[in-house]
Amino acid sequence: MKAVRLFGFDQPPKLVDVAEPTISGPLDVIVRVAGAGVCRTDLHLVEGVFKAGMGDKLPFTLGHENAGWIEEVGAGVPHLAKGDPVILHPQPSCGLCRQCRVGNDMHCTGGSFFPGFDGTDGGYAEFMKTTVRSVIKLAPGTDPATLAPYADAGITAYHAVKKQLPVIHPGTTTVVLGVGGLGHFGIQILKALSPARVIALDSRPEKLDFAKRLGADEAFHSALDGGVSAVREATEGLGADIIFDYVGEHGTPDTALKMLRRGGTYSQIGYGGTLTINTVDLLLGEFNIVGNIVGTYNDLAELMELAHEGKVRISAQQFPLEDAADVLHELNAGHIEGRAVLLPAGAAAGARQTAVGAVASR
Amino acid sequence: MKAVRLFGFDQPPKLVDVAEPTISGPLDVIVRVAGAGVCRTDLHLVEGVFKAGMGDKLPFTLGHENAGWIEEVGAGVPHLAKGDPVILHPQPSCGLCRQCRVGNDMHCTGGSFFPGFDGTDGGYAEFMKTTVRSVIKLAPGTDPATLAPYADAGITAYHAVKKQLPVIHPGTTTVVLGVGGLGHFGIQILKALSPARVIALDSRPEKLDFAKRLGADEAFHSALDGGVSAVREATEGLGADIIFDYVGEHGTPDTALKMLRRGGTYSQIGYGGTLTINTVDLLLGEFNIVGNIVGTYNDLAELMELAHEGKVRISAQQFPLEDAADVLHELNAGHIEGRAVLLPAGAAAGARQTAVGAVASR
Amino acid sequence: MKAVRLFGFDQPPKLVDVAEPTISGPLDVIVRVAGAGVCRTDLHLVEGVFKAGMGDKLPFTLGHENAGWIEEVGAGVPHLAKGDPVILHPQPSCGLCRQCRVGNDMHCTGGSFFPGFDGTDGGYAEFMKTTVRSVIKLAPGTDPATLAPYADAGITAYHAVKKQLPVIHPGTTTVVLGVGGLGHFGIQILKALSPARVIALDSRPEKLDFAKRLGADEAFHSALDGGVSAVREATEGLGADIIFDYVGEHGTPDTALKMLRRGGTYSQIGYGGTLTINTVDLLLGEFNIVGNIVGTYNDLAELMELAHEGKVRISAQQFPLEDAADVLHELNAGHIEGRAVLLPAGAAAGARQTAVGAVASR
Amino acid sequence: MKAVRLFGFDQPPKLVDVAEPTISGPLDVIVRVAGAGVCRTDLHLVEGVFKAGMGDKLPFTLGHENAGWIEEVGAGVPHLAKGDPVILHPQPSCGLCRQCRVGNDMHCTGGSFFPGFDGTDGGYAEFMKTTVRSVIKLAPGTDPATLAPYADAGITAYHAVKKQLPVIHPGTTTVVLGVGGLGHFGIQILKALSPARVIALDSRPEKLDFAKRLGADEAFHSALDGGVSAVREATEGLGADIIFDYVGEHGTPDTALKMLRRGGTYSQIGYGGTLTINTVDLLLGEFNIVGNIVGTYNDLAELMELAHEGKVRISAQQFPLEDAADVLHELNAGHIEGRAVLLPAGAAAGARQTAVGAVASR
Repeated sequence: MKAVRLFGFDQPPKLVDVAEPTISGPLDVIVRVAGAGVCRTDLHLVEGVFKAGMGDKLPFTLGHENAGWIEEVGAGVPHLAKGDPVILHPQPSCGLCRQCRVGNDMHCTGGSFFPGFDGTDGGYAEFMKTTVRSVIKLAPGTDPATLAPYADAGITAYHAVKKQLPVIHPGTTTVVLGVGGLGHFGIQILKALSPARVIALDSRPEKLDFAKRLGADEAFHSALDGGVSAVREATEGLGADIIFDYVGEHGTPDTALKMLRRGGTYSQIGYGGTLTINTVDLLLGEFNIVGNIVGTYNDLAELMELAHEGKVRISAQQFPLEDAADVLHELNAGHIEGRAVLLPAGAAAGARQTAVGAVASR
Repeated sequence: MKAVRLFGFDQPPKLVDVAEPTISGPLDVIVRVAGAGVCRTDLHLVEGVFKAGMGDKLPFTLGHENAGWIEEVGAGVPHLAKGDPVILHPQPSCGLCRQCRVGNDMHCTGGSFFPGFDGTDGGYAEFMKTTVRSVIKLAPGTDPATLAPYADAGITAYHAVKKQLPVIHPGTTTVVLGVGGLGHFGIQILKALSPARVIALDSRPEKLDFAKRLGADEAFHSALDGGVSAVREATEGLGADIIFDYVGEHGTPDTALKMLRRGGTYSQIGYGGTLTINTVDLLLGEFNIVGNIVGTYNDLAELMELAHEGKVRISAQQFPLEDAADVLHELNAGHIEGRAVLLPAGAAAGARQTAVGAVASR
Repeated sequence: MKAVRLFGFDQPPKLVDVAEPTISGPLDVIVRVAGAGVCRTDLHLVEGVFKAGMGDKLPFTLGHENAGWIEEVGAGVPHLAKGDPVILHPQPSCGLCRQCRVGNDMHCTGGSFFPGFDGTDGGYAEFMKTTVRSVIKLAPGTDPATLAPYADAGITAYHAVKKQLPVIHPGTTTVVLGVGGLGHFGIQILKALSPARVIALDSRPEKLDFAKRLGADEAFHSALDGGVSAVREATEGLGADIIFDYVGEHGTPDTALKMLRRGGTYSQIGYGGTLTINTVDLLLGEFNIVGNIVGTYNDLAELMELAHEGKVRISAQQFPLEDAADVLHELNAGHIEGRAVLLPAGAAAGARQTAVGAVASR
Repeated sequence: MKAVRLFGFDQPPKLVDVAEPTISGPLDVIVRVAGAGVCRTDLHLVEGVFKAGMGDKLPFTLGHENAGWIEEVGAGVPHLAKGDPVILHPQPSCGLCRQCRVGNDMHCTGGSFFPGFDGTDGGYAEFMKTTVRSVIKLAPGTDPATLAPYADAGITAYHAVKKQLPVIHPGTTTVVLGVGGLGHFGIQILKALSPARVIALDSRPEKLDFAKRLGADEAFHSALDGGVSAVREATEGLGADIIFDYVGEHGTPDTALKMLRRGGTYSQIGYGGTLTINTVDLLLGEFNIVGNIVGTYNDLAELMELAHEGKVRISAQQFPLEDAADVLHELNAGHIEGRAVLLPAGAAAGARQTAVGAVASR
């Protein structure tokens, strides 16, 4: 089959022919890929950001944001059948460790991490292998290709919002920093799950209207001081209660802390920069700083429910799988609108035959 | 009356004669001071750490950690009478703003902050003025002087622990960094409130036995690598679930993050240093970083209950009020064991006549 | 002034002349009543449901659901001035007990309960007296008369919903039993605060469309079996996750438990009937049964925010104060649509001069 | 192998020879039983309390509270080996449904319930079959026989306490009704997990000292009025904050509600009786009524940690498996002290060779 694999750091990944994956354990699941989302993390992988201890795992197939159809399942998987449309949680969790049992699939201590990220093969391919606990079955007729970006970008935004729900009430002011692939989910999810007031900030003026159409109550240009004065003004000088940082670099951690209310929370999703704070300021503000790696399986199931109800939509562009290297190049150059999704040749054909709209299998 | 007042930054405070405070509003309360705790924050005040915007408020009387006896109350204070032993929450909260109404007294937006810290007069004096909502009545016969350190050091440690209770269960590993005035409360409170395993770290070898007597399950010397390898070893390489940093300087924020488990929490109480973290590490660890300014009124009431039950004890030394400047000097030099408490002359006499042991008035 | 007072049980209350209330303590507040909601609890008061220990308190002025304008305040009330439009939390809370300090105003142990309910004078009058902590200031120009029903019916529904938010997620099915004065708030609040699916049940067919206009996803006639089969069918046989019972009599507690999912919650707001359950069934279902007396002050403030944003609206009818006895009679006969509000003569005139729409003073 | 099976309702179960269980799926686990706890629920099973829809499932082997050694595992079970000492959660959960993924194993919608209760074979036998997610591995050398009562009685008490931890603080008063097989766990667990004050009530005077030795702060005879006046007196008339009812029959639900504070919680664990409450009283008290069916897998793992630390101990008697019918008869007659455990012949021999004390495998 065709697969796009990383052969070396700082080199574009290459489209090559590899053997199809095969079932080896009773809980294995092989999925025919419909669409694989292209994530900024894929860029970072290529750049070698995560290369510590990974050198000997190259080459491997990229792609940790995947949806498709069931192709084959192991003997211990009774509820999935060939052809079922599915979306995949990135973590093939063990189901036995404490983290799995409290629902924190992404902190599974069972020994694996994300295929397509950790040196095992991901979804930039015609087929990929995962295990039973990562599979969410979609309603019959759903086109999985269009849904792939929910599998990582979507649930990370969802997870970040969900962790803050206990402190949101009518009157709570939240800020969404960055209205791109992650942030455009963040605004919609905040509005779907809570009564929060949402202020969007972006350094690109053309994103402000987009933010409002997604549901933001206000949207400000962050060019001058990162948006600090705009947020202070909009909150009677007190600052925002919660700031979701979907950028995480270019100084956003610093400016975010300057627009945060006493007792408030800075929730970080985007990455690349550095956060620095004097402990006296952390104390005086009694701030909470919260990292978010990805969402849980239940987060993804809940997000599929929101999508099914039409409360959250994806802004994405589709490309053929063979264009992977070009798409990564364009993403790096800032030329991708919303999320990019790669479609293998066969999947694209399959997608054309499926109904649009149906999403969640309850 | 006698009072120890700050006349200028980087100068020792001076013992002077000032007028006694008087009732001016219906909710005012005047307390005859029994004991005023000496806090590292008093040192920082003298050093000018907080001098921004405070210059025009000098001179004022120091002391934000106070206990004593009711002397006089305003017309709207029905439940307190002259002679009642009391301990004072540092914040004279308004009782009307949202923060007060959810119990976050220290984030009161009613316009005041801590007497003895914010440029208004505190408890390094024979009498001090506060308002009704900051007063906790103690059981008749209680000696308030011995309890003053609970009013700030005690409740800050209590508050930090209480915020983490929802994620503590049998099997949870916590680390207490620093077994001094704050940390010695932290260990006892963790053990009184939860089933957590407690590992204490201190750079002073003589504190390790002290930590174990306070209830720590293990205690390690942090000299070499800040204790990172000891904690990693004690947790099968995974790291601790929660780290309470009662130091907050000399590199502890950095080493703490190195001994933290994925999904874990760094809770900061001591201050003075700087915390720096790459957003990619904050994300991959999915860490929580939590500041703690002080506890709430209810925290103080609950802590008095623990003291009443004998589950928490204070390690403190008492000095006459007139020695304030010397005590601050000794604290700075690291020569104070546990917490130091200043006693006005009259209060010391009063204290001798009260019973030891009685604490909380339920 | 004119006031409607209860002189004896099972007798209609009478409109009489009484002295206006006067300020006696520093935290007292006197309000010129704009509107006083008529509650089913007023009927129960007249019927003697609560007469135990109350006989010697008659006569007193009814009315525990009130809004109006500040008339006069005590010396300890700095932030309210004559003419400010306000809505009143029913409980004049002390602000000093633990319950007040955690925000549970209605469980205040300070000695008072609801004026207009507990034998002290309420708002079926031209003026009423309360204390500072029960007052929520509204935006200048707001007409308080139209808002009175939020002060009890509204916040009770709000409180019931808010307590369940931690267990609601996309995919959660809730049932609202009874689309009357309480339930019509319940549906709107559920939709404003959460992503829950809402199924409304009512024995009056004409209420089903009303429920859908308020936001219910589905609405069923409960005539046959109380709605049990409809809810079971709508949930693949599993039952609903949460049931809000705004009726609480005529058998609704029994039928509600029959449509509840394992691990689900029955939240009771309406009252009058009896709940009976075998402990083996409580255990096998692992049910939660939750009573709701009224909301907190913060609940009312948050509800005012939702009203300000237009997310919750009142269905109410206005009547002159002197018609109180007739309105109670009509309420008992089931002839009142939504909530009834009594307007003193002067207030009605005042109301005509205020702007419509403005609500919350942030 | 030998097994004690239920052949008909209202007949004693019989010891018979049956075939040993065999592995049929990749996640199956066969355990050599070391000890099987005898539960009041077994009595209820024999009496036909649960016979609805169960008639066609007879005969089956009783025993839902089991511990033993791994005998054989399916192909998808990598971490367990023959001879490993284990304790079994009663629910062989699927690991795929939402309830499993949030840790509520006992509400698994995967299709199975408790072996030994639901008509499939349990642990009153030499061997029993379960599935991988129900197995907790114990430390090498642990004697599983002595631990069996933790697997149902223990975790049900643990679960009930754990659900209440968020509302317990120093000063909280809890009541434990009934100091028998369940309640003796309840007292110890409350003290191990929380700072609650514990008042024990029992109608058998000889249990009061036992309660205090387990950690109860006070213990009262409940003969006269169910303990209502004793609890009211001990709480200044306010009532208890939380009542754990380990009896659930003979009128305890009624008396419990009479000793409950406003806003308090009645948590029910024992069963057999009926709870009746007027909705007006449920509302005025704003009570919470909480059922408890059993604990979760994580509850059992945490309880094993407490046992390992010596914070919880079992009071139990051991009997040979062949005496099962007699033991049930004695339990019914009230002649069993603490919990009874049945030991198959081989297991008893095995048990003698294992070390005492070791418990949890972290």
